This record gives sequence, structure tokens and C-alpha cells, in this order.
Amino acid sequence: MVELCQIVTRLLSVCLVVCLVISVPSAEASRVRHFKWEVKHEFKSPDCYNKLVITINGKSPGPTILAQQNDTVIVELKNSLETENVAIHWHGIRQIGSPWSDGTEGITQCPILPGDTFVYKFVVDRPGTYMYHAHYGMQRTGGLYGSIRVALPDGESEPFSYDYDRSIILNDWYHKSTFEQAAGLSSIPFVWVGEPQSLLIQGKGQFDCSTPGIQASLCNATNPECSPYVLRVIPGKTYRLRIGSLTALAALSFEIEGHNMTVVEADGHYVEPFVVKNLFIYSGETYSVLIKADQDPSRNYWASSKVVSRNSTTPNGLAILNYYPNHPKRSPPTVPPAGPLWNDVEARVNQSIKIKARQGYILPPPQTSDRVIVMLNTQNTINGHVRWSINNVSFNFPHTPYLIALKQNLKHAFNQNSPPNGYDFANYDIYSVANNTNATSSDSIYRLKFNSTVDIILQNANTMTKNNSETHPWHLHGHDFWVMGYGTGKFNMSTDPKKYNFVNPIMKNTVAVQPYGWTALRFRADNPGVWAFHCHIESHFYMGMGLAFEEGIDKVGRLPSSIMGCGETKSLPP
Amino acid sequence: MVELCQIVTRLLSVCLVVCLVISVPSAEASRVRHFKWEVKHEFKSPDCYNKLVITINGKSPGPTILAQQNDTVIVELKNSLETENVAIHWHGIRQIGSPWSDGTEGITQCPILPGDTFVYKFVVDRPGTYMYHAHYGMQRTGGLYGSIRVALPDGESEPFSYDYDRSIILNDWYHKSTFEQAAGLSSIPFVWVGEPQSLLIQGKGQFDCSTPGIQASLCNATNPECSPYVLRVIPGKTYRLRIGSLTALAALSFEIEGHNMTVVEADGHYVEPFVVKNLFIYSGETYSVLIKADQDPSRNYWASSKVVSRNSTTPNGLAILNYYPNHPKRSPPTVPPAGPLWNDVEARVNQSIKIKARQGYILPPPQTSDRVIVMLNTQNTINGHVRWSINNVSFNFPHTPYLIALKQNLKHAFNQNSPPNGYDFANYDIYSVANNTNATSSDSIYRLKFNSTVDIILQNANTMTKNNSETHPWHLHGHDFWVMGYGTGKFNMSTDPKKYNFVNPIMKNTVAVQPYGWTALRFRADNPGVWAFHCHIESHFYMGMGLAFEEGIDKVGRLPSSIMGCGETKSLPP
Repeated sequence: MVELCQIVTRLLSVCLVVCLVISVPSAEASRVRHFKWEVKHEFKSPDCYNKLVITINGKSPGPTILAQQNDTVIVELKNSLETENVAIHWHGIRQIGSPWSDGTEGITQCPILPGDTFVYKFVVDRPGTYMYHAHYGMQRTGGLYGSIRVALPDGESEPFSYDYDRSIILNDWYHKSTFEQAAGLSSIPFVWVGEPQSLLIQGKGQFDCSTPGIQASLCNATNPECSPYVLRVIPGKTYRLRIGSLTALAALSFEIEGHNMTVVEADGHYVEPFVVKNLFIYSGETYSVLIKADQDPSRNYWASSKVVSRNSTTPNGLAILNYYPNHPKRSPPTVPPAGPLWNDVEARVNQSIKIKARQGYILPPPQTSDRVIVMLNTQNTINGHVRWSINNVSFNFPHTPYLIALKQNLKHAFNQNSPPNGYDFANYDIYSVANNTNATSSDSIYRLKFNSTVDIILQNANTMTKNNSETHPWHLHGHDFWVMGYGTGKFNMSTDPKKYNFVNPIMKNTVAVQPYGWTALRFRADNPGVWAFHCHIESHFYMGMGLAFEEGIDKVGRLPSSIMGCGETKSLPP
Repeated sequence: MVELCQIVTRLLSVCLVVCLVISVPSAEASRVRHFKWEVKHEFKSPDCYNKLVITINGKSPGPTILAQQNDTVIVELKNSLETENVAIHWHGIRQIGSPWSDGTEGITQCPILPGDTFVYKFVVDRPGTYMYHAHYGMQRTGGLYGSIRVALPDGESEPFSYDYDRSIILNDWYHKSTFEQAAGLSSIPFVWVGEPQSLLIQGKGQFDCSTPGIQASLCNATNPECSPYVLRVIPGKTYRLRIGSLTALAALSFEIEGHNMTVVEADGHYVEPFVVKNLFIYSGETYSVLIKADQDPSRNYWASSKVVSRNSTTPNGLAILNYYPNHPKRSPPTVPPAGPLWNDVEARVNQSIKIKARQGYILPPPQTSDRVIVMLNTQNTINGHVRWSINNVSFNFPHTPYLIALKQNLKHAFNQNSPPNGYDFANYDIYSVANNTNATSSDSIYRLKFNSTVDIILQNANTMTKNNSETHPWHLHGHDFWVMGYGTGKFNMSTDPKKYNFVNPIMKNTVAVQPYGWTALRFRADNPGVWAFHCHIESHFYMGMGLAFEEGIDKVGRLPSSIMGCGETKSLPP
């Protein structure tokens, strides 16, 4: 009898274990990830220089969001700033079915007032490397940003293997406040904040406190907050390093001394693997690279970020690749890598071209598009203000968010005319300083036919400075697009589309347009909502280098009242 | 015939003149003064040091509001700050019938969002000298302030005579931003911004640009923005100088070299005239003084402000009294006056006591009061934060403005308990550092019986620093109060009221409480609304040294929907 009981008990326990093993993955598959965040101003020394930083739960960068594909992420965001509003964008998350959670102030929501708690709720529908950051005025430069890492569901695996997974965000850093930067940009005469003081690697940089004119009490080189970021590795192991850039201005090159990097993911899409010594990365982009800790394990190595595409005075950012069990603070015995030449455009274009969708994971683009919009990127003066424009129209934020205005049919809330579909191709010289006397600013938007295929040709040109054209990383909200092609000079409508890559174009949400060059991208307007598309350089967007797309507004569900409260939505019934 | 016509024409013109003379005053009597203001961030150098300032129509101080008694003032305020809200308080204006226009964020309105235009509309029901300033977070320190001058109706005259009328506001000035100041005060450990860098006279001061550690590019001693303020006078003429103080911290002494000042008005009430060499003025107070340009007209004279009541490192503020036709920039040949000793409390108390209602203009106070509230001013630590408290309760702003919460009966919007009516008189030692272990913070308010007479005894005590008690200028919104008496030491409930001044107490809206002293004031709770009462030192109020009174909420008219949009009012029907 006792034995029978023991056997039954054993069987029962086996059953329980089996049940648990079976049930865990299905529970994981639809998990809700709940976060409570408090945003406030705190004094921090990310690069040893003490200044006011916008923190989340006391940190900048904020907490990393770890989730699995198809999880629902809920972020309860409390704004504890004193007098300043806030909004957070979930960069790379398409917000399918939740366009009101995209977090772009003026486009998808009213700002979150001090004292208010706003609930962002969205599904992370694809695995990959994403980011979040403030999307209100130039608030991102205040330090409000972090990583999102979406893993595959349990039981599924990546087409590459690694032992450990790490996220780092690269950034540039100014000592002037966001308010000072913005006020300068909108001043007459224009006051530019200049090159960043530091480059940060996962929130840590090392400004030289002995720089003349720096108040000693504000800069402390021994502050642990600004000790170099340490990436600890175990010899022989392979690491997936998820690298994102949220620079305000700088295009970067990132490298790890003595270690090649194999690029395997870009903006959430698998890349046909290729090896680089240094990774070029533009603001708004993310990459996964694999690195193997296969070098001399008796020492540490430098990791470094460097400004490219501008002849910048900003010193390189430094971090330490720490081979366990060496002391993490032990400086590598070598001089940190100098990085590539800042003006080697070709090397950067070559990397961009190498980024192709991985075999077996190719989502082929539609063969034709329904609409082509050519977007000439220019710099102008409008009413005495220096502005960036698209086809000579500089973007002004509306007072009432588009998503609400369109859904509620508030036609007077913004200019109902369509912005131009192109520019004067025949006569515009992209290599000279143009007069652009017809430049205007407007809050008009592009309205796209739902489910149509749209081609965007981003055309770069000369700025208001002779022989100068800049690099612009353009970011699209709510979608990934296929990168159809890159080129130099003026895009030729009849010949260039024939060179598009239909075989294995990568899908991305951010792509660079090189000086005097063009980038062609294609996307399906299949996500009901209103979506920003803009240069990810914070000052450029602030100065008008952006726009919004509407598609399928009639298919957008009931808007939550929490996104309202500004402009004409102030008096809308809840 | 021609002659007849000429006579008729002459008669007609006489008629017209008479008609004009008669009609003008009546038209004036109910005039609407309409202002359009735009608030934004701009770089300015008020004391030669360049920093971000909040301007109105490009200026700090903003435009002076000139009006006549019973005029309606309408200010259409556009918030053009990037990410920051705003609210403006009309300091000294009682807002009878318009409590929603008092401009105190969290008490009478929600903040005004960027891009929004808010309309303040109120009647200036009494002649006198008033001010306006931001009343949101510590925004006043950003430079958002100005003067209001309300003249008598045409045909009425003041009980004193003068040739010209001038307004100046005294201020102190910090180089750190409002955000930095506020973040420091709410940090653990507490970071105090310290003494102001400069004193401003009508928005102009002279910081010493050669101070070590000052970046040369940020400080320009020859910037015309910071040339001393010039008060030009014509020899032999008498000037009414309306002097207000909106310092963040400093109590001041103001004087004009070689010229006595006759005090004739305080906070909008006529004073029995008395002569001073230097005028003591606390933040939130206004005075009118008469000065006669009766000195040697061949030279200019210094006007100067000096910090008193703190052993401050802030240099005196300087302006120039310019005797026409001397050059306005010609420096006086003398050393500027040093000003009184900072710690001569007696001199300050003596001036306060001298301020009595002018014969013929005495509004006698009620002989008895219906309620006495004793308010012990203390400093505590609450949850690690340094706070100021009243009867051991530190004021927290509610998330939903009281005026709306009370009118709409939103009982859960704030703590419905009454704050304490007093403290432990018998056992509390005002001369030592108290434990105040029972200190709490709360958003509870004092609810007053409508039309009742209320006595407030402000009792000063030791701070958390041994042998230290500070000066606090308390300001009441929505009312003027009678200043019943001042005293040193602990207020004695049975003997001190017998010494109250029932003969000619001055009415004011702001009054100082001296170190270890008390000030007794009486007012009628006859203005339906919710009214702030707080120390006018910006950091003290921010750290909890304030409260709110409700009276006659049932008599408040329909609230404008424009004051809503935050907290629980976000989803209220318009």
C-alpha cells in the first residue's frame, strides 16, 4: 500500500513537471511586461561634467526593456518634471493597432503634463533591437532614452549563435541645456550649439576636466558616473552586441580594438552576415554584431566611438572590453584606436550597400509602387530663421496632434493642402547654394492611400554654405521600409529605379542619405495612423526637416482620451 | 449771412469741445485694456552674463500694464516656450469675480501648454502699484515679471502731488537656470543655489565679468543690455517712484544718494507719509515714494539696492539718477552708498511699524475676529528632503487645481482634512532646532467661513541651523489684510492681541515676519474662490512654505473651460 502510494506520488510529480514544462512557453507567448517609470530632472555627470539630466527611475539611459515577440509592453510613465511636459517614442516598434502609443508629441498625442501619469501600451510584434527616447521639442538631448530588446519566443532560435546578449546605446553629449540649444536654433541671428563635448557609450563618457574655462566644481574626472563603460567578456565566448545610436548630431564609427564584428541584424531585420572592423552607425539606427572573445585574455581592450561625416572637434568615446578575470578598470596597454577618416564617404556607403536581407529571411518588396515622392533636402532662411526644408517646405508642428485632428475631422486644425510631391528636377542645381526664395513653412501632411506602395527618394543637396552637403539619417515611424538603392548626385527618375535591389533589400526604419547623394526606399502604407518621417538629427528635425504621413485613418480604433488635452482637443468630450 | 454762419460754426465747435471733455472720462471709466503677449525663451544679458531668460514680447521685465481704476485688463498670453508650461499671477489684484484669473497654477488653473493662448481677464478695482509674475514651479526666477500701475479715474486725485510717475522693479538674479535651482532643492542631499549673483534694478545689473571661472564668451561688461538703469529727472520736479520687489530670495534696502524719499503708498494703500533715507522692501511688496530733484543739478547720483537680513555675498545693485541735461551714462563723481548694515533688524522693524494707513483713507478693521490661525514657520526634513512647514505641515501642490476640484466637488482630488490651526504653543521652543519628527507634507487646505473675519499669526522660529531664523515675506492672494501688529519672540495669545493697532493699521497683500518674531494680520474672507497664501521667497514656497484658503466656493461663477486640462479636470466636459 505504501509502495503504491509512493508510485502514485512519483507519477504525480512527473506529471506536474511535464505540465510546467509544457505550460511555461505558452504563458510566455502572451506575456504582459509592466513597467512603472518616473521621469525627472537630476544632476548627473555622464561625462564627468555635472549637469541637469532627464532621468527615468534615477537613470540615464533609462531601464532596458526586455521582452519577447508578441508581448504586450505597458509603461506607466509619471512625469515628475517641474514645469515641463514629456512624450516618449518607442523607436522601431510599429505600433500596429496602437498608433496613439507612438509617443510623438504633436503627431500622435498631446504632451504629458507634470504630475500626470500616461500609460503607453503596445505589442512588440517583431524580435530585434529597438530603442526609446523623448520625442518632444529637443528633449531627447536631455538624456531621456534607453534600449528595447525583443527576443524570439521560447523554442525559436536566431539564424546565428552566441553565448551572451548585451545592449549599448551610443550618444553624443552637450553641456548646454536642451533649452539653450533650442533657443539658439530659433534665434535671429541663428546660434548653433556647435560640436558635442563628448561621446557617450551606454551613458558614459570622459570629458577632459582640465579644458580651459571649465569650472572645477562642475567637473570631476574621478566621478564613478563617468568611469568608462565596461563590457565584461569570458574568454572564448561569443557575444551579441546590440548597438544603437541616438546621437543628437553625430554619425559614428564604432570599433573594438583587435576584434572583428560580424553584422547580423539591422533595425530588427536579419542581415546577410558580413565582417567589419568598424561599424558605421547613424542616429536612429540599431545593429547587432557578434564578437568572439578570442584575443589574448591577459589584458583588456579599447572600444571606441568616433564622429564621422563631420570634421568634428569632439574627442572619441571610450569603453573597455574587459577579459575576465582582468580587473575591469585596468586600462588596456595600447593607444585607443584612432578610427577611420571622418570624410571617407565611400567607406560608409560601402557598408550601407553591404547590408542585405539574410537568405531565408527575405521579405521581397512589391515590384511596383503606386506613388513616388521625391524629397529634396535643403536649407533655407524663412522669416530670418535658418530652417531645413523638404521640397522647400519646412515642417511646423501643428497645435493639435494630427492623429486626433484627422480622426475627429478637425479640418481647420492644420493646413489641408498636400505638400509638394517633388521639386523642380530639371532646373535645381544640387551642388550650389540655392536661393529657395519660395521656401515656406507649413504643417500640411502627406495623405497616403491605404495599402498602397509608396516610394520615397531622399535627395540631398547643398546647404546654405558653399560646397557643403550634410549626412541625414531619416527615420520612419510605424513602418519598416525596403532600402531600394543609394546613389550619388541627382536622382534620375528614368534610369536609377532600374538599378533598385529587388533581390534582397534590407528592411529598416532608419537610413542615411549621404552628402549630394540620394537614397530610395519603398514601404507599404498598411498601418492605420499618422506617422512621422524625419531626419533623426535632433536639431534638423527641430528646424523643420520632417513631415507626417497619414494612412487608413478611418481604420484607426477609438482614441484613448489620455492622448488629448492640447490645442483643439482640450475641449473634446472624453 | 456769412457772419451768422461763422457764429453757428463757432458755437458748434464749442459744443464739440464740451462734449469731448464730458464724454472722455466716462469712456475712460470702463475702458478695456487689451494686451497680446508672447512668452518665450531668449538669450539675454540682464547683468552682462548671457543666459536663457523667459521674455514677454522680447523683454524682461515685460511690458508695464498701465490702466485706470475699474478698467478691465485682458491679456492674451501665448505660450511659445518649447516644452514648458506657464501661468502668470497678477500680484495685488484681488480678482473679485474672476478667481480663475489669479494665475496660480495648481490652485486656480491648470498650466498653459506650449502653443496655447490663454486669456486672463480681470478688473483692476483699486488704484495703486502692483506687479505680475510667473506662478508655476520656480518660473518667476526665469525673468517672467513686470509692473502694473493703476491710476485713479480721470478727475480724481491722489492725496499728494508729483510731476511724473515711474515704475521700477527690484530683483535678484541667478546664473543657474530655474531648472537647476529647483532640481537642487529637491535633491537628496539638498543642493542650495546660494546667494544671487546680482541685484537687478528694472531688469539691469552689473555682474563682474572678471570673476574667476566665468567664461569670457558669456560675459560682456559693455553689453548695452546691462548698462545701469537710468532714471532721468528734470531739476526741481517731483517724481513718484513706484518700487516693487520680486526677488527670489533677498530682502532689500533701496536708496538714492543725497535724496530722501517720502513713502506715500504701500501695496496699493495710502500711507501716512514718512521720510526715509533708505527703503526696506521685501519680495512681493510695492511702495510709492516721492523724490524731489532738488540737489546739485550739475551731476548724476547713484541709486542702489542692497541685500539685508542675510549676510550675502551679492554686490549691491546700481542705477543712475540722471539730472537732465547731464549725460545719462555719466557716472556720479561719488562712491555709491554702502547701504545699511545687513543685520540691523531693528531698523527694518521700525520702518514696518511706521507704515500706517493715511488719515482720511483709513479702512478700520473689524473689532473682533471669528477665527484665529497661528502659523508656526519651521524647517524640517521630510523623507530626506529639506522642507519648510507651517505647523509641521509642508505644502504639496495638488494635481488638480483646488478651484476646479472644489467647484466640481472632486473630493478625492486632495486631502479633505483641515490643516492644523496652531502648534504646541506651550512646549515648542522657537529658539532651538526642533526635531519636528511629526512633520508631514499635505495638499490639505484651510476652508474659511464666507464673510468671516480671520486672524493669522505668523510665528517665526529657528531653522534647522543653530541660532538661525530667517525673514519671510508672506503674500496673500485675493485680499488685502490689515497688519494688526508685529512682535519679537513667541506670540502671547492673551496679551499680544491687546496691543493690536485698531486705529490706523495699513492694509497690504505682503508682509514680513522677522527672525524669531511674529506678525499678526486680519482679513475678511469675502472673496469667493481659492487663494494662495505663501512665503514670497521662491525657494521657500517651492519647499512647502505655503497653503491655500477656500471661501464661498458656492458663490463662484461658472468656471471657464480654459483653466482646465490637467489632473482630474482633463476629462471634465467643457
